[in-house]
Amino acid sequence: MVWAMTPGRLEAFSDGVFAIAATLLILDVHRAPGSVAHGLLNAWPSYTAYAISFLTIGIIWANHNTVFSQIARVDRAFLMINVVFLMVVAFSPFPTRVLASTLRDGGRAGAFLYGLTFTLMAIAYGGLWLYASHDGRLLRDDADPKTVSGITRSFAPGSLLYVTAMLSALISGYLAVALFALIALFYVFESSAYGRS
Amino acid sequence: MVWAMTPGRLEAFSDGVFAIAATLLILDVHRAPGSVAHGLLNAWPSYTAYAISFLTIGIIWANHNTVFSQIARVDRAFLMINVVFLMVVAFSPFPTRVLASTLRDGGRAGAFLYGLTFTLMAIAYGGLWLYASHDGRLLRDDADPKTVSGITRSFAPGSLLYVTAMLSALISGYLAVALFALIALFYVFESSAYGRS
Amino acid sequence: MVWAMTPGRLEAFSDGVFAIAATLLILDVHRAPGSVAHGLLNAWPSYTAYAISFLTIGIIWANHNTVFSQIARVDRAFLMINVVFLMVVAFSPFPTRVLASTLRDGGRAGAFLYGLTFTLMAIAYGGLWLYASHDGRLLRDDADPKTVSGITRSFAPGSLLYVTAMLSALISGYLAVALFALIALFYVFESSAYGRS
Amino acid sequence: MVWAMTPGRLEAFSDGVFAIAATLLILDVHRAPGSVAHGLLNAWPSYTAYAISFLTIGIIWANHNTVFSQIARVDRAFLMINVVFLMVVAFSPFPTRVLASTLRDGGRAGAFLYGLTFTLMAIAYGGLWLYASHDGRLLRDDADPKTVSGITRSFAPGSLLYVTAMLSALISGYLAVALFALIALFYVFESSAYGRS
Repeated sequence: MVWAMTPGRLEAFSDGVFAIAATLLILDVHRAPGSVAHGLLNAWPSYTAYAISFLTIGIIWANHNTVFSQIARVDRAFLMINVVFLMVVAFSPFPTRVLASTLRDGGRAGAFLYGLTFTLMAIAYGGLWLYASHDGRLLRDDADPKTVSGITRSFAPGSLLYVTAMLSALISGYLAVALFALIALFYVFESSAYGRS
Repeated sequence: MVWAMTPGRLEAFSDGVFAIAATLLILDVHRAPGSVAHGLLNAWPSYTAYAISFLTIGIIWANHNTVFSQIARVDRAFLMINVVFLMVVAFSPFPTRVLASTLRDGGRAGAFLYGLTFTLMAIAYGGLWLYASHDGRLLRDDADPKTVSGITRSFAPGSLLYVTAMLSALISGYLAVALFALIALFYVFESSAYGRS
Repeated sequence: MVWAMTPGRLEAFSDGVFAIAATLLILDVHRAPGSVAHGLLNAWPSYTAYAISFLTIGIIWANHNTVFSQIARVDRAFLMINVVFLMVVAFSPFPTRVLASTLRDGGRAGAFLYGLTFTLMAIAYGGLWLYASHDGRLLRDDADPKTVSGITRSFAPGSLLYVTAMLSALISGYLAVALFALIALFYVFESSAYGRS
Repeated sequence: MVWAMTPGRLEAFSDGVFAIAATLLILDVHRAPGSVAHGLLNAWPSYTAYAISFLTIGIIWANHNTVFSQIARVDRAFLMINVVFLMVVAFSPFPTRVLASTLRDGGRAGAFLYGLTFTLMAIAYGGLWLYASHDGRLLRDDADPKTVSGITRSFAPGSLLYVTAMLSALISGYLAVALFALIALFYVFESSAYGRS
């Protein structure tokens, strides 16, 4: 059977899932109880969880685009790994909601689930890339060797960061959230540095 | 009246509905009652329903793309059959929610509705394809005969699988869910096999 | 100031709003009280409202595409009329929800709001078209005269149908719903007939 | 590392977030208590908040497109500023919901949050533009000087309008809402005037 999906089509579909998952996050931001002003101020766990998740999805979306900038074709196996990857991305509003609603009460279980989700996302992303780049399977003929090796090399430390943050949730939910925020900010600024070089 | 919609435009719109329907599924994943940790563990029917529905929508989206890879033009009847098909796709978050919230209590009615929805989706998909391919009505001049006959031949067994799973819900909700999961996994791996050939 | 938006860009954005509004409808479909099986059967007002709204949005989306097939450029006024039109389209999940939840108790107010929304949508659509086509302001040089006059001629009877259905809600919510369904089915089949000619 | 994202890709992703954020607003429109007819009439704060936010998002989306019409390339820093900007855009359904549900009880805190959100959006938008246009960093070689200086000049007064409306919320929620509505209508008509010139 001829398989005719182009990388562009698959990327547009993926971009849609990224955009929807990020934008749905706001549905789980709620006022805390009390007067309006206090309820808005006390909702900071909701704002924090929203911001970390939105930035993290934004970063993973940018990385996903970098992968697609290096591939020339897709096959059904790649397509299905991508669907599984998107299934994890689209799952992220749930741990975000749990984190926001349980952080003030300790939040270790919620922060662990949150870290687990982003760890799985990093692993699925790594699987997607390893499948595409192994022996240059789906790569463009003119794929940039520095970009290709850069993506491959950055996968392990990135996953390790998320595993560390996930495990730190067993000690303290607040510690884990601080690490999630630092990871997101690190990638935002590291990304920005690329743009200047 | 001149009808100017291109297959690309219609496919982009359809892809949007697929992406939104799949991503909305997460809004119906909820913690079970109890402590946070137990509530998260006991929410497995939600996770199961989410995963099966997400994968199934992903597979049907891929199949829908295969159909569009073989057609050269669309007419208003095809457009309207496609709207009806998308109406069924966009309906799927509802049976997913019902299945997740009723599975633990037997879940036969919920599982039946779930199977009915995916059966209707398979039938609408088949209708879409039969309309487009009958006498080559909307096909490209260079449509691949193997792909065309492959889509036509795979429609009946696919529908039969969903009818079987739907009817099994009358015996047991758990049995039906197991069958839905097996069907989804079968298509994920069968699809991946294509990519290797 | 140079205004550089293309019709394609504006149409893609509009298609996104159509796809999201239609797919969000499912969030307001709920089981009726009672056992699962009875609650699912008794939820028919939800299913009816969902189906009518989804088909109606699908039809208006197709008509909106026909308008865009005839225009060559957009200006800021057209852009803003289109935003107002999309504001009405994106509003439709609300009257759909009200209709579904109040139909069984008479539903005259809900059905009136529903009719009012689709009447406003028809009017905004008409305004969009009249602005674009007046003196051929935004039309393509090779715009099809039959299509242009066809869109212009079909606007008044279409609006009248929605006004009639809206006013019938003052007599009976059920009568109005029957008319909304008939209008949607009429356009689905009338559209399909085009495809065959 | 080679960075291969095109402005078109980034703009399509942004357009998706705009379209989703605007369309999600309807999920927070609710009937007021009482009979259906009275509940619908008394829900005017919901309708008002919906309309102002939808139009404001529409205007900012149009401005964002104007920015993209002048740039030739994107870098990672621009990408990340854009993600932060979209994070504010996607946040807007929350203050809209708060405004709608608290306006009748004074609504000063809700209106202040609302103004703060749109002020931050204006600032993020300004930052995006200043980064892109500083020394012509990302501009097209044939960028239109009048458009470039027009965007730069309109940033300060636009931000000042939102700051003023935000501060007016400390006096009265109703006053602030009236100002938000006037700003939106001003931009809608000012935009339309462009189209005629």
